[in-house]
Amino acid sequence: MTTRIAIVCPGKPLRRERADAVLALAEAEFPQVDLAFHPQCFIRTGHFAGDDSTRLAAFLNVANDPAVDAVWFGMGGYGACRIAGDAIAGLGQNADGKSYLGYSDAGTLLGALYRHQIGKPVHGPLAGDIRRDGGDEAVRRVLRYLSGVPVELEAGLDDRPTAAFNLMTLAMLAGTDLMPDLAGHVVLVEEVAEHLYAVDRLFFHITQHLHGVAGIRLGRISDVPENDRPFGSTAEQIAKDWCARSGIAYLGRADIGHDADNALVPFGIAPQRGDA
Amino acid sequence: MTTRIAIVCPGKPLRRERADAVLALAEAEFPQVDLAFHPQCFIRTGHFAGDDSTRLAAFLNVANDPAVDAVWFGMGGYGACRIAGDAIAGLGQNADGKSYLGYSDAGTLLGALYRHQIGKPVHGPLAGDIRRDGGDEAVRRVLRYLSGVPVELEAGLDDRPTAAFNLMTLAMLAGTDLMPDLAGHVVLVEEVAEHLYAVDRLFFHITQHLHGVAGIRLGRISDVPENDRPFGSTAEQIAKDWCARSGIAYLGRADIGHDADNALVPFGIAPQRGDA
Repeated sequence: MTTRIAIVCPGKPLRRERADAVLALAEAEFPQVDLAFHPQCFIRTGHFAGDDSTRLAAFLNVANDPAVDAVWFGMGGYGACRIAGDAIAGLGQNADGKSYLGYSDAGTLLGALYRHQIGKPVHGPLAGDIRRDGGDEAVRRVLRYLSGVPVELEAGLDDRPTAAFNLMTLAMLAGTDLMPDLAGHVVLVEEVAEHLYAVDRLFFHITQHLHGVAGIRLGRISDVPENDRPFGSTAEQIAKDWCARSGIAYLGRADIGHDADNALVPFGIAPQRGDA
Repeated sequence: MTTRIAIVCPGKPLRRERADAVLALAEAEFPQVDLAFHPQCFIRTGHFAGDDSTRLAAFLNVANDPAVDAVWFGMGGYGACRIAGDAIAGLGQNADGKSYLGYSDAGTLLGALYRHQIGKPVHGPLAGDIRRDGGDEAVRRVLRYLSGVPVELEAGLDDRPTAAFNLMTLAMLAGTDLMPDLAGHVVLVEEVAEHLYAVDRLFFHITQHLHGVAGIRLGRISDVPENDRPFGSTAEQIAKDWCARSGIAYLGRADIGHDADNALVPFGIAPQRGDA
């Protein structure tokens, strides 16, 4: 049975050669997968992969298409929050059965979908992650997952509901009308290219907004820019400190981040391993 | 009558030569002002001007001192949110009569004080702003204001209550237990050294949290780093766009920012011009 996966970019555009590389890999290794990169992925309008109405229309086009089994986000960047409210409002019943997979800025849409219990949001590699060292394996992981082939998920998922976010994305979602209710959830966070003082500030913000969660797990905090002075504590010390201050359980590390190892984390209660 | 002003640093440390320059200016021009830089200003502990307990103790020491008329923040940086909750809890009745003046990261304390209606929070230059082009005049403005000499405030203050914040600082405050109720307020925001996509993202966040304000005025968005592609709209277009999306009135520009022209903005209803 063919799994039809449509790729759109709610934030920044995807380079065509990266789409081509994903298509080549899929063709060689996943005959059961039909991949369709929406032309919107390649539009460049200022910062974005097309203006808001173009990105919104592309998302709604694939999400509402009964012939599409899964929506895969091509790139993160920034921009999903500009269309997410209208996106939710424009989804019909055909949007509900499918998976939505990506992370980073696309986490805004995953969060909004999860808030409204539409479809199956999944934190995991973007199509554009093929550019990374080991990116082929990241793409294989996604294609296995979306086509129902057994595949490893984030380690340590248990019977508690889970959600995974980029730290900045979660901080900006917090308190907005896109924010899902994460009460009782294990919340995984990761960050890239932020100073440790900014990570500390983000933890102040999110821990204030996450009262009632089951706990926080820390993914990778990578590419931290060098500051004019050392911050004085590590990313894990920061996470532990703010968890302790706010009475939230710190539950250890998570295998997510802006890299090819970025694990798959289905939002909610994880299905059995390998059962997508 | 002498005005006794105490300077502390809730975030990053102040360089001693900058304190010396402020002291020299005050001695030459403001004989009615008694300036006291708390030794905590000069401590360096990792990112901060002393660890949390040191910065907290210094703030409480001067805020609770009946002999101190005003607390002036020496530097911003990052760190006020780490002590602001305990700071509020530790303030006694002597804290109430005085002004608290600064901006940027120190806005976290101004916001928390304002939430609890303690003292008179004022957005305005930091002592460390003496380092800037025109910094002498910024320092004079503060010393005039705090010593009751007539001085120009932000233009356009009217009979509506007002508050002014750094955009990131406000975004991180939003929804936390330090956030003041800004219903009916004109809210002024400024930012420095953030990409325009980040400014856009911050406006998404704050406009969601500012329902019920009288409107937003935009200060300077300065030192915007060059991105790999142009964002596609200006800072003012961003502010107008998010105000329109959220039904908040956009009320024009404001004369605040990370520069020596950064205007004085008393929180709440502004006193008559020159009446501190």
